[in-house]
Amino acid sequence: MTLLKTHHCGQLSKSQIGETVTLNGWVQRRRDFGGVLFVDLRDRSGIVQIVFNPDFSQEALEIADRARNEYVLSVTGKVVERSADTINPNLETGEIEVRVTQIEILNAAKTPPFFIEDGIEIDEQLRLKYRYLDLRRPEMQKTLMLRSKAAKIFRDFLDENEFVEVETPILTKSTPEGARDYLVPSRVHPGEFFALPQSPQIFKQLLMVGGMERYYQIARCFRDEDLRADRQPEFTQVDIETSFLSQDQLLDLMEELTVRLFKQTANVDIPRPFQRITYADAMGKYGSDKPDLRFGLELVEITDIVAGSDVKVFANVAAAGGQVKVLNAKGCANWSRKELDDLQPFAARYGGKGLAWVTVKEGEWRGPIVKFFKPEEIAALTERLNVVEGDLLLFSADNKKVVADVLGNLRLKVGRELGLIDESQFKFAWVVDFPMLGWDEEEKRFVAEHHPFTRPKDEDVHYFDTDPGKIRAQAYDLVLNGYEVGGGSMRIYKRDMQEQMFKALGFSKEEANEKFGFLLEAFEYGTPPHGGIAFGFDRLVMLITKRNNLRETIAFPKTASATCLLTDAPGTVDDKQLEQLSIRVALKEPAAK
Amino acid sequence: MTLLKTHHCGQLSKSQIGETVTLNGWVQRRRDFGGVLFVDLRDRSGIVQIVFNPDFSQEALEIADRARNEYVLSVTGKVVERSADTINPNLETGEIEVRVTQIEILNAAKTPPFFIEDGIEIDEQLRLKYRYLDLRRPEMQKTLMLRSKAAKIFRDFLDENEFVEVETPILTKSTPEGARDYLVPSRVHPGEFFALPQSPQIFKQLLMVGGMERYYQIARCFRDEDLRADRQPEFTQVDIETSFLSQDQLLDLMEELTVRLFKQTANVDIPRPFQRITYADAMGKYGSDKPDLRFGLELVEITDIVAGSDVKVFANVAAAGGQVKVLNAKGCANWSRKELDDLQPFAARYGGKGLAWVTVKEGEWRGPIVKFFKPEEIAALTERLNVVEGDLLLFSADNKKVVADVLGNLRLKVGRELGLIDESQFKFAWVVDFPMLGWDEEEKRFVAEHHPFTRPKDEDVHYFDTDPGKIRAQAYDLVLNGYEVGGGSMRIYKRDMQEQMFKALGFSKEEANEKFGFLLEAFEYGTPPHGGIAFGFDRLVMLITKRNNLRETIAFPKTASATCLLTDAPGTVDDKQLEQLSIRVALKEPAAK
Repeated sequence: MTLLKTHHCGQLSKSQIGETVTLNGWVQRRRDFGGVLFVDLRDRSGIVQIVFNPDFSQEALEIADRARNEYVLSVTGKVVERSADTINPNLETGEIEVRVTQIEILNAAKTPPFFIEDGIEIDEQLRLKYRYLDLRRPEMQKTLMLRSKAAKIFRDFLDENEFVEVETPILTKSTPEGARDYLVPSRVHPGEFFALPQSPQIFKQLLMVGGMERYYQIARCFRDEDLRADRQPEFTQVDIETSFLSQDQLLDLMEELTVRLFKQTANVDIPRPFQRITYADAMGKYGSDKPDLRFGLELVEITDIVAGSDVKVFANVAAAGGQVKVLNAKGCANWSRKELDDLQPFAARYGGKGLAWVTVKEGEWRGPIVKFFKPEEIAALTERLNVVEGDLLLFSADNKKVVADVLGNLRLKVGRELGLIDESQFKFAWVVDFPMLGWDEEEKRFVAEHHPFTRPKDEDVHYFDTDPGKIRAQAYDLVLNGYEVGGGSMRIYKRDMQEQMFKALGFSKEEANEKFGFLLEAFEYGTPPHGGIAFGFDRLVMLITKRNNLRETIAFPKTASATCLLTDAPGTVDDKQLEQLSIRVALKEPAAK
Repeated sequence: MTLLKTHHCGQLSKSQIGETVTLNGWVQRRRDFGGVLFVDLRDRSGIVQIVFNPDFSQEALEIADRARNEYVLSVTGKVVERSADTINPNLETGEIEVRVTQIEILNAAKTPPFFIEDGIEIDEQLRLKYRYLDLRRPEMQKTLMLRSKAAKIFRDFLDENEFVEVETPILTKSTPEGARDYLVPSRVHPGEFFALPQSPQIFKQLLMVGGMERYYQIARCFRDEDLRADRQPEFTQVDIETSFLSQDQLLDLMEELTVRLFKQTANVDIPRPFQRITYADAMGKYGSDKPDLRFGLELVEITDIVAGSDVKVFANVAAAGGQVKVLNAKGCANWSRKELDDLQPFAARYGGKGLAWVTVKEGEWRGPIVKFFKPEEIAALTERLNVVEGDLLLFSADNKKVVADVLGNLRLKVGRELGLIDESQFKFAWVVDFPMLGWDEEEKRFVAEHHPFTRPKDEDVHYFDTDPGKIRAQAYDLVLNGYEVGGGSMRIYKRDMQEQMFKALGFSKEEANEKFGFLLEAFEYGTPPHGGIAFGFDRLVMLITKRNNLRETIAFPKTASATCLLTDAPGTVDDKQLEQLSIRVALKEPAAK
């Protein structure tokens, strides 16, 4: 039977010369040169060339000759140095080869639907259907191994810092944000349902009430929502909660963790402390609460300068309490008319009604709106925006949110196009002081920007009674290169404040009790001050490995329409099964599938 | 605001004498002695006595005086040695106390529904409803910390041995054993369902097809079944799969892992190699496939001796191809008539129609059946069973299964009652050579004893065509003190054998393809020989910590009727939510809840 491998293919080198080794692996390719058979044998570690020659073993050669790509082999042979002219500098193991004297074909293989190789164009649907073949590609293997290593780094750090890993339930209760809950019918309790957790939020807080002091879990979370390219119905977060720490103390510890993670995976030294930027500043300067700080190009507000302008749209917006802001695209004055025209639909995509522009060429301001500017406005703008020859000024005038969306996204576009982004950089920042509540126009009520357990800043608590929209939260996001990679908050830990919060959210006392009575009650039995954070593990792995979507970081991901192309899940089930669960399928209209 | 704790309560000792420390914790109890207030302050690590005295700080004393049990405090003070007469030998920190000069009450507490203390009788329902208080008890904290440590030991070992941690999907596809699947309706695909995995079996095999070579995951699994005391609807297993290893190689590695786990958690040295016992022997000698090997009391077959006996039931059973076996309960001849009578319903519980007995007292065999024995039968039995004065012989005659069940359970009962079990021992064994198939009388077909991917023993493969019931599997269970703590198998890795297996199970080709087409196809693309194991993590933690049910090892367990008493899950949900999922509740009869 099979012999245990003595070495990994990819780790053989000149130091094994003369040794007899046993390898197990897959045939990457085979070449026949005048009766000698050269096979690239691949395992998880890499590739090595093995050679079958009648001089080494006629029998081995004959068996090997039956092997095709992706056959599984066990071979034994001697490691020898390659002659100078046959060294392969493109292969880690290219200085040696293995002369095989014994071989067993462990399994045969049909020709796979695509080559098991990096850097080739394969339709993603095909890759996902044959994920087990896709996973053989070195790139996927490396990513999954890095993911495993990253988890270990998190765990080791948290263990060293006295965090206890606790598993929280997957079968739990539907919450008020339940619209995105996956539900699970209960067989034992007909008509009742479990929900899969969108996060272990409640349980980690209860663990703090339970005196666990420091908790972590690499937790699976679930969200049944319309999927975008960078979302998965199930995803993984590194979930952390601590008692007795202040926000600063927690963020310090998390920085230390982050620095270690990136040192040990990407081999980069991230300087500390991370920049801390308020939500207000992030929105103001970058038009985003997850700014990409690898480049400048800050937005500048000019509402005061143009409030009385003859550019009517500016004056009107200013009068209506809106904002006028400018992105000065340095050196872009030579953009073509088409490029400038294309900015209009771009702005529209983010809700903008238009985008005014000015180019500065040959010492002159040009563009449709220039003639409406007064000389003193031009002077003031020149000074505030540091306008020089070659600048392209892009103006957005609207309400705060639209201006931020339009110019924030424009900033990213211009940054990319001007090559201002150093792709090798990892630029972290904490965004802090988030607003606690946002006004929901549709529901005509406040909603929690983070979640309803977030603690307000001490100095803002008094706004509960007067102007809840003004309350800033003790909430923070960890931002990396324009992505949110973590987020959390200090939590409310007193019943009366939690009730105030539910009230601000428009929950009736009954609703609050129905959904969170147990939590409100828990707060009465000696709950410590606590707070925590959750890192988006999939996204961190994606950024470390510089892959371009989350599916590349997950062994068996779902598609954008939440299906598994490999197992063909979800699927229909027997009526008997449904009957036992006391549910019935109720299609809205004849299934159009 | 709160000061970061400088020390843990339970870790203060004489070596901190003279130091000023800051502690955070909960009031365990308070005593007032003539104007001096003594408080036992508790955190995760243990308890320390803190003292408030007007001489240290009048203000601190006044604040502390408001504190009641379970108040949360932050205190700062100096560590001092206790005078000889006030040393508390029952407290780890009993040689010192902390004289408090500064205090902050971080939160108040109502009187909890039970004392936060070990060793007191509390109704489990109440404990589960107030789990966050129950978790504060030292016993629960220690168990959860040990659980966390055990997970780390597993991970570190597996990491050292080149296993890659891979997360497999929780939202997956219903399988043929789907009757116990939890289902999750899909919003995006009306009428279709995901299933929660009963184990990551298929995915770990696909990872081997994918060339991952060594995989592990501490995985949540789900089974919707009638619950017994030692089952949970969601449970955790340490899931492991390897390529290219033989069964012996894998078991060796797993022994090494197990030995380390028990050394580092229970501080015991488990000798290696573990005993290996075939399924046939385990059933024969112990009447169980998970024998408790901490004591002997082996069952002995006597069918041959009594085949022609005048004890008609023995002769009849022997003639019908059944078995007659004896448990010789050494020294139990003095059991009362009532005790012997009580064995009849005990036997009946395990399907036995009765239990004959013989006592050996004053050199004489006594009991209702003795008169039917021929002298040569008595002689043969005396020899085979080593019968001596004081023995109690317990006879079971029936088919193999019933005899095993009755006498196996009787063996445990007698072993316990005779005090034969050394509770400090951890006695491991591998049970091997399980039958691959069992006959399902109801469905009139074979079912997989382990699962349909288990590889037959090479020498038994030929029985597929002639007598599938005879096939022994390359399957193994790890048994500890009468519990199955792990189990696994070498897997089928060739399509034709997997098809043979599905056929033996009575699957039509269509069924097999419908359910496992992707796996059958995967086997055609170069699947390595592979096999694995899964450890029952909850149960291991239970046995290490010597708790008596799984709920004691889980932070937020479900009850035997699969509910969470804390959050009150499962629960009803809005019709709107169900409508979005295209399902409807269909109760069989008016809900009687």
